[in-house]
Amino acid sequence: MKIKLLLLILLAISFTSRADDGYRLWLKYEAISDQNLRQEYIRYFNGINLQVTSTPIVETAIGELKVGLKGMLGIDKLNQNSKGFIIKTDTKLKKEGFSIQEKNGQLILSGGDDKGILYGIFDLLREIQQKHSLKNISKSESPKIAFRMLNHWDNMNGTIERGYAGASLWKWFELPETIEPRYTDYARANASIGINAVAVNNVNASARLLTKEYLVKVKVLADIFRKYGIKLFLSVNFASPKILGKLKTSDPLDPQVQAWWKAKTKEVYEYIPDFGGFLVKANSEGEPGPQEFGRSHADGANMLSEAILPHKGIVIWRAFVYSPNPNGDRFKEAYNEFKPLDGKFNQNVIVQVKNGPIDFQSREPFHPLFGAMPRTPLSLEFQITQEYLGFTTNVFYQSILYKECLDSDTYSQGKGSTVAKVIDGSLGTNPNLSMIAGVANTGSDRNWTGHLLSQANWYAFGRLAWNHELTSESIADEWVQMTFQTDEKSRKTIQSILLKSRDTYVKFTTPLGLHHIMGHNLHFGPEPWLAKSARPDWSSLYYHRADSVGLGFNRTQSGSQALSLYHPEVQKRWINPKNCELDYLLWFHHVAWNEKLSTGNTLWEELCFRYYSGVKEVEILQKEWQQCEGKINQTLFLDVKGRLAAQHREALNWRDACVLYFQTFSNQAIPASLEKPQRSLEEMKELVEIYQLK
Amino acid sequence: MKIKLLLLILLAISFTSRADDGYRLWLKYEAISDQNLRQEYIRYFNGINLQVTSTPIVETAIGELKVGLKGMLGIDKLNQNSKGFIIKTDTKLKKEGFSIQEKNGQLILSGGDDKGILYGIFDLLREIQQKHSLKNISKSESPKIAFRMLNHWDNMNGTIERGYAGASLWKWFELPETIEPRYTDYARANASIGINAVAVNNVNASARLLTKEYLVKVKVLADIFRKYGIKLFLSVNFASPKILGKLKTSDPLDPQVQAWWKAKTKEVYEYIPDFGGFLVKANSEGEPGPQEFGRSHADGANMLSEAILPHKGIVIWRAFVYSPNPNGDRFKEAYNEFKPLDGKFNQNVIVQVKNGPIDFQSREPFHPLFGAMPRTPLSLEFQITQEYLGFTTNVFYQSILYKECLDSDTYSQGKGSTVAKVIDGSLGTNPNLSMIAGVANTGSDRNWTGHLLSQANWYAFGRLAWNHELTSESIADEWVQMTFQTDEKSRKTIQSILLKSRDTYVKFTTPLGLHHIMGHNLHFGPEPWLAKSARPDWSSLYYHRADSVGLGFNRTQSGSQALSLYHPEVQKRWINPKNCELDYLLWFHHVAWNEKLSTGNTLWEELCFRYYSGVKEVEILQKEWQQCEGKINQTLFLDVKGRLAAQHREALNWRDACVLYFQTFSNQAIPASLEKPQRSLEEMKELVEIYQLK
Repeated sequence: MKIKLLLLILLAISFTSRADDGYRLWLKYEAISDQNLRQEYIRYFNGINLQVTSTPIVETAIGELKVGLKGMLGIDKLNQNSKGFIIKTDTKLKKEGFSIQEKNGQLILSGGDDKGILYGIFDLLREIQQKHSLKNISKSESPKIAFRMLNHWDNMNGTIERGYAGASLWKWFELPETIEPRYTDYARANASIGINAVAVNNVNASARLLTKEYLVKVKVLADIFRKYGIKLFLSVNFASPKILGKLKTSDPLDPQVQAWWKAKTKEVYEYIPDFGGFLVKANSEGEPGPQEFGRSHADGANMLSEAILPHKGIVIWRAFVYSPNPNGDRFKEAYNEFKPLDGKFNQNVIVQVKNGPIDFQSREPFHPLFGAMPRTPLSLEFQITQEYLGFTTNVFYQSILYKECLDSDTYSQGKGSTVAKVIDGSLGTNPNLSMIAGVANTGSDRNWTGHLLSQANWYAFGRLAWNHELTSESIADEWVQMTFQTDEKSRKTIQSILLKSRDTYVKFTTPLGLHHIMGHNLHFGPEPWLAKSARPDWSSLYYHRADSVGLGFNRTQSGSQALSLYHPEVQKRWINPKNCELDYLLWFHHVAWNEKLSTGNTLWEELCFRYYSGVKEVEILQKEWQQCEGKINQTLFLDVKGRLAAQHREALNWRDACVLYFQTFSNQAIPASLEKPQRSLEEMKELVEIYQLK
Repeated sequence: MKIKLLLLILLAISFTSRADDGYRLWLKYEAISDQNLRQEYIRYFNGINLQVTSTPIVETAIGELKVGLKGMLGIDKLNQNSKGFIIKTDTKLKKEGFSIQEKNGQLILSGGDDKGILYGIFDLLREIQQKHSLKNISKSESPKIAFRMLNHWDNMNGTIERGYAGASLWKWFELPETIEPRYTDYARANASIGINAVAVNNVNASARLLTKEYLVKVKVLADIFRKYGIKLFLSVNFASPKILGKLKTSDPLDPQVQAWWKAKTKEVYEYIPDFGGFLVKANSEGEPGPQEFGRSHADGANMLSEAILPHKGIVIWRAFVYSPNPNGDRFKEAYNEFKPLDGKFNQNVIVQVKNGPIDFQSREPFHPLFGAMPRTPLSLEFQITQEYLGFTTNVFYQSILYKECLDSDTYSQGKGSTVAKVIDGSLGTNPNLSMIAGVANTGSDRNWTGHLLSQANWYAFGRLAWNHELTSESIADEWVQMTFQTDEKSRKTIQSILLKSRDTYVKFTTPLGLHHIMGHNLHFGPEPWLAKSARPDWSSLYYHRADSVGLGFNRTQSGSQALSLYHPEVQKRWINPKNCELDYLLWFHHVAWNEKLSTGNTLWEELCFRYYSGVKEVEILQKEWQQCEGKINQTLFLDVKGRLAAQHREALNWRDACVLYFQTFSNQAIPASLEKPQRSLEEMKELVEIYQLK
């Protein structure tokens, strides 16, 4: 009776207690029900033997340990005890690194510094969450990349550019006085996967954040993040000296401009002593930049870097630039602008390059700048938010895409010169200035990311940023275990859904190397017929080049020659249409409709088969997910089930729109084995138009 | 030990169980701890005696009863029992009405229909939440207004026009397949306060929602709302026949246009058989409308009304129109356009009028159209979202404002012809077509409304829509009791904060009848110096008319003559500057800076005193709130504490900006008893500018 009453009260406290709303992410710390395992773990935590000076970060780590042990093992107290769990620092370990050892029944966690201890605690808790035995555990880790960063494209008004999971997490009007508990929960989630840097605002940057009025707000976030080992960065507007300083110019070589930035930077550090630095999008898509004054990107970056160098901050300068040229190839633009600047950037400047040469497509060849700027630290920018990857209605496990890029061999210093090695400093750039960045997919939606399975992308980004040698399989396995707490069969099912999801999405949207044929502005759904846009390189025709002969963008010697930007060994992968990997075929070649591919099908047939099989594969994902009903929390089950059904609707739209449209060029029937689309091309165009109405 | 374990598991299930995150609104149903009272209640629910045919709405009511009784009284089962709680219908009661009677220890709830039962159940649970005795209870209620409606200004992309509590609740991309549990929680909250109509999209309307692609999505919401007695309405774009139907015109007298709307309306009813109707903003602020074709608002409304009449739907046509005229007075625009149309609208058309003649200011005289269109049902439109009322950083209990308008006497049919009677049909319009609408303040923020105390505005709107004779005091008392579950002293403190909040806000923003001097576009903070805008009537100078002589808009016979739009008895309230209510003084008069007011102060002195006392009053609100620490949930306490501190910062900004600016006209010192502002006018202008940067 007493228990019943208690239960009732607790249930009443929590409106949605029966439902798992996804808010807890992978940090559920649910009770370990296997009593043997539980007792085995409990023995290691009969107390704590703290041999470390307390810092705010150490306190965060201990706090997290307590939460984890209370949730999973029911441990309420951790008294100081010489035989207890040892936590100490070990100067032989690298900064941020840790080791976990078990000896004679005693567990020892050593950190290279307090952040190492924090990461070690999260790692230990992750081991327990996965129900791994700690007996004889002996592991030692340190991050391969120094700056593991999220870029938030959050606007000052609370919207998020390309955000699909609600409004911005940052409540700028309410700061600094109102401090949402969610700010802490966000920092904690990041720390748990090793993310140590966050740029809080859109790269299409407002100058607001550099004012006193806003710096007191930014400081609140920085103060919270600091306890979780996270440095705060700001995206800055290059025209700030004009906008805020009322100067007549923002010319980086103007002494007044330089003085303004020096004073402003000093001011920023008065609020945030460990401020990370500036992230800059300049002379790109209408943003101001040094080229307005006849100066180079290096001039702009170096001017900022001099302002921030005395404070040990850094400048991250984005290489996402492309001038609109109907006869050019956007593929080459950033390379042509930045390659000549190699060696011209100051020591504390990082150039940030998107993973591919176009724009976060579902499959891109790696950006040719990787390996091409040996004297410049490059940051690799991924987009976690699913701008071109189906918003929040499509499952797309991005670890596959990340790994494909990281493992790509640039051959810049011989075989094995992977993109991962380019960015982590292994090939000679400053390892202390190594960086990887992900455009965040977080928002105010209760479950943070809209699609529950998109939480796996945030998680995978962090884990790969920490160790790019991890496999997509192992990361998926970790995430599924921690998120769903279910039986092995269901775990495998969900893991398999994740692992297949990228290929499926590519098939029904942009198979065979098609790219950038989505709806304009919104980037939702298909619009391969898009002929005109505000810029030529924002149309679809610019990219797919369909005609009566065939399909695809010829980037070989006889075409735009973009392929020649790569090392000859890389070119070999793609240069010959006869043996070019099919996934990249139309990236580099204009292929005749009747050309026989290695599959034995003509291009037209293969294109149709892939679009159709993409839809079929979504149906399979749906069936597989259905098998999890009753095995995982029903609220989570239903939510993903709904999203998969939406994905199926969208997949049919992509298939019908693209097949019918390209058919107008191939002038061939859809292969007889495939059902004809039930809708006409005109109907598909109307449907796409609806989503573009005000 | 067993209890402990259970507790731990439950705590682990609910990430934030210790925190009250505000999501449950006023429907907390927390356990009644007073054992005597608990037993008293329990006796009434020793079973249930259902004497009513089951309908989906009755099922909703019973479900809610069970949740409430379980939470508050721990009752797990309600078996059918002839001596139990009787629920029945009573055809003598009005539609939507109910009665609750206690006789010989037995409780009887009668409903005029199933919606009456639903409202009766919520009323009964509200009595218990407030710990009122049910002994001898005998009450009978029915709503005074037929359509009690929320208008959502939610856009298709998930943003909300003038929304400050996160993103839209409606996930259009994810519908119809993914159905957020929150849709149900939203409908439930509305039903609990008697709201029975919802227009889901912005009046600056997209045509999207009328397409098949979107109607299947809209249907999902309508199906959920229906179970809670709520009818769904759509805002429609008057140009839809051109946009969707590809017609050459949207002229309401064109037979093709008429046929298009008839067919489209029929289609809407195929998806939603009880669809409520269309809400239209036409020829206002750039929206399309019948005037483009030389037709009147009545022509437009009547054309739509004919399309919807066969389906028993209605048309709500907004009177918020004003042509830009630098020499005119926006005050008179809607009156001049609509008054001549009285009697020309079809029987199923309601004209929707904002509470005041300008635009949702913190205090406005009632709109002169109320009482001026005796042959037209008028809907009264309030804005619950705080566009001009401090966003989510200012407490502003709007019940005070609502009541002021509802109780205003129009004298249209003699003394006592209040606005409330104009809209509820008492003065001769069709009571079945009576309506009141509130622009919703809900969003995806966890607590729905951003500022916790803004939940009281949603609540008060619903309660007054049900019964406009309720007092602001009693509504505040109900809401505070249900929301905070605290001791009487704290309840009184919070109630008092609410009741004072409107006056305080007016004082530090727009005292003495100033209006529309806020920042442009964003409408955040002060900008009395705003001289130019996209339209003359979007500037501040247009409204305050400050000069070396004095301040205020002369709307008497010697000025714009707007005052003459009112009944002579109403004019008496305001016509003489010597005895005009001070709160409306500058609404109607241009008053000399040195004019002595009834307070004994000159206008300039009084203006300064009010701005300063507004700031002081915020400090008092802060101190009073501080007294609640430890008496209410700490998370809620801290959240509101932070917002009050932000309000204080903003109040200082308003005070300093306005006093310093108007001083440039009065050329007088700030009264010696007041501290001088620590900032200059230039500094205030810079500060305001910061919030207007990209």
